[in-house]
Amino acid sequence: MYGIILAGGSGSRLWPLSRELYPKQLLKINTDKSLLEMTYLRLLDITDEKNILSITNAKHFSDVKTQLSSIAKDPILLSEPTQKNTAPAISVSVKYLLDKGKDDVVLVVPSDHIIKDNKKFKEAVEKAKKLAKEDFIVTFGIKPTAPETGYGYIKSSKKAGDFAFKVDEFKEKPDAKTAAKYFKNKNYFWNAGIFMFKASVFMETLKQFAPEIYEITQEFNFKKDSAIEFTKFDKMPSISIDYAVMEKAKNIVNVPIDCGWNDLGSWDAIYEINKKDKEGNVKIGTTMTEGCKNSFLYSSNRLVAGVGLDDIILVETSDAILACKKDKTQDVKKVFDKLKEIKDETHLVHTTVYRPWGYYTVLNQGDGYLTKMICVSSHGQLSLQSHNFRSEHWVVLSGCARVTLDNKNYILKPGSSIDIPVKVKHSLGNPYKEELKIIEVQKGDKLVEEDIIRYKDIYGRVKA
Amino acid sequence: MYGIILAGGSGSRLWPLSRELYPKQLLKINTDKSLLEMTYLRLLDITDEKNILSITNAKHFSDVKTQLSSIAKDPILLSEPTQKNTAPAISVSVKYLLDKGKDDVVLVVPSDHIIKDNKKFKEAVEKAKKLAKEDFIVTFGIKPTAPETGYGYIKSSKKAGDFAFKVDEFKEKPDAKTAAKYFKNKNYFWNAGIFMFKASVFMETLKQFAPEIYEITQEFNFKKDSAIEFTKFDKMPSISIDYAVMEKAKNIVNVPIDCGWNDLGSWDAIYEINKKDKEGNVKIGTTMTEGCKNSFLYSSNRLVAGVGLDDIILVETSDAILACKKDKTQDVKKVFDKLKEIKDETHLVHTTVYRPWGYYTVLNQGDGYLTKMICVSSHGQLSLQSHNFRSEHWVVLSGCARVTLDNKNYILKPGSSIDIPVKVKHSLGNPYKEELKIIEVQKGDKLVEEDIIRYKDIYGRVKA
Repeated sequence: MYGIILAGGSGSRLWPLSRELYPKQLLKINTDKSLLEMTYLRLLDITDEKNILSITNAKHFSDVKTQLSSIAKDPILLSEPTQKNTAPAISVSVKYLLDKGKDDVVLVVPSDHIIKDNKKFKEAVEKAKKLAKEDFIVTFGIKPTAPETGYGYIKSSKKAGDFAFKVDEFKEKPDAKTAAKYFKNKNYFWNAGIFMFKASVFMETLKQFAPEIYEITQEFNFKKDSAIEFTKFDKMPSISIDYAVMEKAKNIVNVPIDCGWNDLGSWDAIYEINKKDKEGNVKIGTTMTEGCKNSFLYSSNRLVAGVGLDDIILVETSDAILACKKDKTQDVKKVFDKLKEIKDETHLVHTTVYRPWGYYTVLNQGDGYLTKMICVSSHGQLSLQSHNFRSEHWVVLSGCARVTLDNKNYILKPGSSIDIPVKVKHSLGNPYKEELKIIEVQKGDKLVEEDIIRYKDIYGRVKA
Repeated sequence: MYGIILAGGSGSRLWPLSRELYPKQLLKINTDKSLLEMTYLRLLDITDEKNILSITNAKHFSDVKTQLSSIAKDPILLSEPTQKNTAPAISVSVKYLLDKGKDDVVLVVPSDHIIKDNKKFKEAVEKAKKLAKEDFIVTFGIKPTAPETGYGYIKSSKKAGDFAFKVDEFKEKPDAKTAAKYFKNKNYFWNAGIFMFKASVFMETLKQFAPEIYEITQEFNFKKDSAIEFTKFDKMPSISIDYAVMEKAKNIVNVPIDCGWNDLGSWDAIYEINKKDKEGNVKIGTTMTEGCKNSFLYSSNRLVAGVGLDDIILVETSDAILACKKDKTQDVKKVFDKLKEIKDETHLVHTTVYRPWGYYTVLNQGDGYLTKMICVSSHGQLSLQSHNFRSEHWVVLSGCARVTLDNKNYILKPGSSIDIPVKVKHSLGNPYKEELKIIEVQKGDKLVEEDIIRYKDIYGRVKA
């Protein structure tokens, strides 16, 4: 069995914890594993690493790769040159499997949902496998636990075998009244976007119902290359797999599943899945409450205090704070969209940015200067690089740094410092066990991440 | 006429903007002047700088002096060695005036209230002056605008001359029911803690009703010295002037005053005095709202976003965030007290600390290191100092630094850096027009502000 993990997705509804460049699947909320990592581990329990293909888009590639590399030796990861919807991502991924000679049953899963009961999930997958082998396309319908308006629904009333149902119809996100009706009716299931099919069956179905996508998909040849070409992929329409294929397919069945699934689509969902104290509060990080109830306090850095709050979501990050009434969490997207419109950076990135070698945090920024704390993991190594518009000054806080500057090597201990002039090739590495922390002071008129010319990189970030 | 400004006070109810070491009177909320500065300017409009005496306590002395020095050439400032209540502060201040041969009318004002209509205040002061000259003690009763439970009241029903009333009784903070009753009755006024009397009359009244305080007060001799001695002051009881004197005095009259007074005793008071948008929101700093009403959003550094909030106070500072239901702002003190109890530094100081030469901001702290941004004003000069437990490393971000290190002088331009070893005498100055900004990296096992030995200081912080 093969697995396709859809690791695209955006970061608007869980802002300010999620960002455009740090979407939901990468988040670790009160856990040591991200949703993406948990998804990958869930598949690793079913099949082997070499049978799991993840697909993300270029802007998330580095972060997705870093996370997957923390649990898999050599995770297969495709990168979409532009962000499209699920139909192109799944089609290209299936083509990849077929080109690699892997025409077997494929399980497609989103990477930004939570599943609490992995055992039940695995059992359902085992059942579905039989149906997929009989050339059915299987969708996994979730038994609704509330009249949700935020999900699409699957209507399926007639049995198809022992544990599956025929799919009558896919239903779009309903209004409150319709959702209440669906909830009372046992024939309606949430559409979780989890599918299973034989690769060749999917491709035939695609050919039949979405010939445009099929044609473009055929242009890719993964036999000789593993990269998705921009010129071809850009011709793809931006359309979901539901619209493009599933809603039209005839050979589709529903395997109902009750596995504690939640798409964590908004802050109130995050509140719901967490353990509450006796006042109904969820508190994560450094928090303090006085007379609060049914509220959610999340601190990533600073002290967050609530007084007399009721049904309030309060989220603190390094550069943005959100306070939101619990029944208005869908409107967080509006704030995100406004920030994007006015080009406020808080929609885009965090002040702490993860890299394959560790992370950096922007501490302070002013006219002509920028200061960062750079943390290099044991055996981490920044690329050999130079900058056209900035000089840098490094002071070691803890650990030991191996610095290459203009072809000379230096070992810097805590308290030592070094100047990196403009345009001079340099590199920072940590060949030791202890984590390395340095303060970097950048000076220059143009202080942007993009001012970086890479010459050598152990993480493959230099194109040949 | 003389003025005594009471500049003690604590920082619990407006936390996290106020701190134990940065109390309410020092705050500039949506204004360019602090409450203390506005109080001083209000008195400067009535009398001369040399007739205004301010009294604060040792822990606030430096900040109070820095603020007063920004508006007065040589402000007279007494410092209480320990924090007592208002009776000792006023008694010692009056003794100071008498010792300096200044037995005239004295106006006593708190420094942490707001008065919107300075003209009406000045008019009332002029009227009161006549009464004070006739040996009355004058209190200024504020005409209530709401049934406040947070203030003490003055009951005064019978006329005493054209514009004053006899004081029947001082009333403690009432419960809601009693406050409603007071509010309907035109004989009740808020006690604003503003008084006026002849210095010698006060001292006689003190002798009569608070002989213990009077005796200790007489031990001070400001003819030869201007410092308050700890050994004497520490014997003072901690008691308010109302309890000690005013409630007992017979020669006390009330001059009602309607001058837009507010003691800004809690966050809802701050909300009330600020201009609202059409949804009833007050927004200060970088804020964004989506469907909020009657709420208060305050950002000092980071973006603060509110979604669907109603009657919520949201305050952001560098190291602590507060969200509070508007009718629960009195309970902010409980959070403050808890933080103090668990020795959480956020009750005590801000990450940005003001100094006579400028300010510094703690950017980052970790095991064995601490990084600050230090900003030195034009012509600012840090003391000549050394540290027993830390080395320092300075990188100039902008402006130019004059550094003295081990008796040698250096001029550092942006991008340059210098190492300050443990125990070596050093000093940092900015003799230029442009503000100087540097990054300081401290290294050592014991990184506390107290590890500073001063040898020379242009602000008088070195004791002879």
